[in-house]
Amino acid sequence: MRDFTYGNPTRILFGRGQIEQLAREVPAGARVALLTGAGSIRNNGVYDQVKAALGERLVSEFWNIEPNPDVLTVVRAVTQIRADRVDFLLAVGGGSVVDTAKAAAGLALTEGDAWTILSKGARFTAVLPLGVVLTLPGTGSEANQAAAIGNRATSQKIVFLNPGCFPRFAVLDPLTTYSLPPRQVGNGVVDAFVHVLEQYLTFPVGGALQDRLAEAILATLLEFGPLTLEKPDDYEARANVMWAATLALSGLIGAGVPQDWTTHNLGHELTALFGLDHARSLAAVLPSVLEVRREQKQQKLLQYGARIFGIRDGDETARASAAIARTAAFFEQMGLPTRLSAYGIGEEAIPRVIDQLKAGRRLRMGERLDVTLEHARAMLTRAL
Amino acid sequence: MRDFTYGNPTRILFGRGQIEQLAREVPAGARVALLTGAGSIRNNGVYDQVKAALGERLVSEFWNIEPNPDVLTVVRAVTQIRADRVDFLLAVGGGSVVDTAKAAAGLALTEGDAWTILSKGARFTAVLPLGVVLTLPGTGSEANQAAAIGNRATSQKIVFLNPGCFPRFAVLDPLTTYSLPPRQVGNGVVDAFVHVLEQYLTFPVGGALQDRLAEAILATLLEFGPLTLEKPDDYEARANVMWAATLALSGLIGAGVPQDWTTHNLGHELTALFGLDHARSLAAVLPSVLEVRREQKQQKLLQYGARIFGIRDGDETARASAAIARTAAFFEQMGLPTRLSAYGIGEEAIPRVIDQLKAGRRLRMGERLDVTLEHARAMLTRAL
Repeated sequence: MRDFTYGNPTRILFGRGQIEQLAREVPAGARVALLTGAGSIRNNGVYDQVKAALGERLVSEFWNIEPNPDVLTVVRAVTQIRADRVDFLLAVGGGSVVDTAKAAAGLALTEGDAWTILSKGARFTAVLPLGVVLTLPGTGSEANQAAAIGNRATSQKIVFLNPGCFPRFAVLDPLTTYSLPPRQVGNGVVDAFVHVLEQYLTFPVGGALQDRLAEAILATLLEFGPLTLEKPDDYEARANVMWAATLALSGLIGAGVPQDWTTHNLGHELTALFGLDHARSLAAVLPSVLEVRREQKQQKLLQYGARIFGIRDGDETARASAAIARTAAFFEQMGLPTRLSAYGIGEEAIPRVIDQLKAGRRLRMGERLDVTLEHARAMLTRAL
Repeated sequence: MRDFTYGNPTRILFGRGQIEQLAREVPAGARVALLTGAGSIRNNGVYDQVKAALGERLVSEFWNIEPNPDVLTVVRAVTQIRADRVDFLLAVGGGSVVDTAKAAAGLALTEGDAWTILSKGARFTAVLPLGVVLTLPGTGSEANQAAAIGNRATSQKIVFLNPGCFPRFAVLDPLTTYSLPPRQVGNGVVDAFVHVLEQYLTFPVGGALQDRLAEAILATLLEFGPLTLEKPDDYEARANVMWAATLALSGLIGAGVPQDWTTHNLGHELTALFGLDHARSLAAVLPSVLEVRREQKQQKLLQYGARIFGIRDGDETARASAAIARTAAFFEQMGLPTRLSAYGIGEEAIPRVIDQLKAGRRLRMGERLDVTLEHARAMLTRAL
């Protein structure tokens, strides 16, 4: 096991009707910015619950945060936060809303050009306190310090980490997820699943407990992900998926083990260039990333195959490939195609992705920093 | 899955040489009370490492905290803390040292009789900040809000919880555990294992993820517990046991599921009356607690047996009993007898334990509060 530092200060308020806890969790007298998406929370009752819980507090509403949020949206939020002298941010939605709120929370108290600050490590002067009401499980952003922000003008997408961006609390009420469209459900489950795999499918370092915790989350997503599509109002399925997605990227399973974010690196470029849903970009490239790196990841692939899918027959190469194939089949079962062509992306896209990686100085990726642009080209070609 | 609130603010500093991080983690200029046990940290180099990391800070040393710490020891620590105007506590040792530090951290800032305050819910006025250097994994106290304190004068032992008692940080260096005597190693592994079982062997509530996380910790302790006895300097084994013991009682696996602390309730009385090591008291009664409640716990016992021990043959009763027997065999393998008679405790002890439970108003225990004193008598009789 490698040395590590682990801590996660976000308080989780989980279960039916927990939104009413906002009355206690948001400081009395706070001037609140409520950040949210295009309006689904108006239709499913979440908006009314939030407003009721906030009571007499002043609320500045910021609507229409888009999927894969753009830095211009963040800048608009910052302008409103400053104008309304907001001192507490409440993100109500999924990962895009939470990530926008994290970026705005830091930029509101930091002078300078937004994109420059975010893309150079997000060293904020200070960060406004932030709470979350999660309505779309998947990204794990509700209980970590990371956020992903895009820049449509330059076709870029960056991820930043700042310990000030851990939400103070996250309300997770599985009932709020019942009305999600199947596409968002599938995206969320696959995003969480890939988060686990990128902290798990590397090479052994004696992190036996971390492996088993990762496998616990994978098995849970495999068991309940499909069930949320079949029976959208199955509380047990919704609750297990929601809690699994949070723990998938809370820092717990990645503490003390190598990590490989190659799939996310490639996926972010595909989203920035072609507007692909984040999870769909991952589903399209992960199987090919694993196949191209099958030999380097063989030991963990065999363990994954045996413990998660019961794969024990055939030689090692066949078993490792079978584990990858089962993973792709699961993504397809969740409604996500696992080929770039299914998203209308062809061979001509590959040099553009490579150029973007080069421009972003992503010349070495993976758990050993030995995934080169040539490997990336092979992965994308295989994923066509 | 049940509704829950979960949060754990303790930062974990895990790995080789992490004690030097104290230089950063303990506030510069702090007046530190260093609380510890009988002196083992002088022999294994931990004391020197701690002192070096604390540098020029003023340190008030408090030695000789005993196993199953007594309230009089806590009171002595409080007197010294107040006299030396300490503003930061550093516990260096195992659960007894950490628990003493938690009680002292609260009592130092709270007026009134120590035992009265602790036994009536530990409602402290305020709590001094606390850090931990753990040298004996097992109790999980290094990263939770609980502490157990005894009162030899009245043969009592109580557990209190106070959110102010979460340590700010916990340093976990597996190297510091190499010199532990086998008895303490065995005790620690069994204590952690029982912590998991008491949050797991209840009845199903749809907490599938919690079950799998609990099983991850159990499997890790089963794999590496015996190895720490066979190969005391196996870093991988020590590291996995240490991290597993912390996560076993960090709040994570118990969030959203029923809990059954009957074994701890009985064990605490046995320790208070007869001075039994905490873990040994648990090892002696757990198998009998499970046998007496086998029918009520059958579904979880079958799941436990199948997933952890691969028990799939025989009828349900036989499989449940086999799972209990395998658990007892594991405790014996770790060097802990699983019968009260092995600790010199006979039938005459039973009415005394029952009287103590009655005096402490523990008339109904277990995950459904339907374990009566008659059940307790049957459990203890079976455990003789």
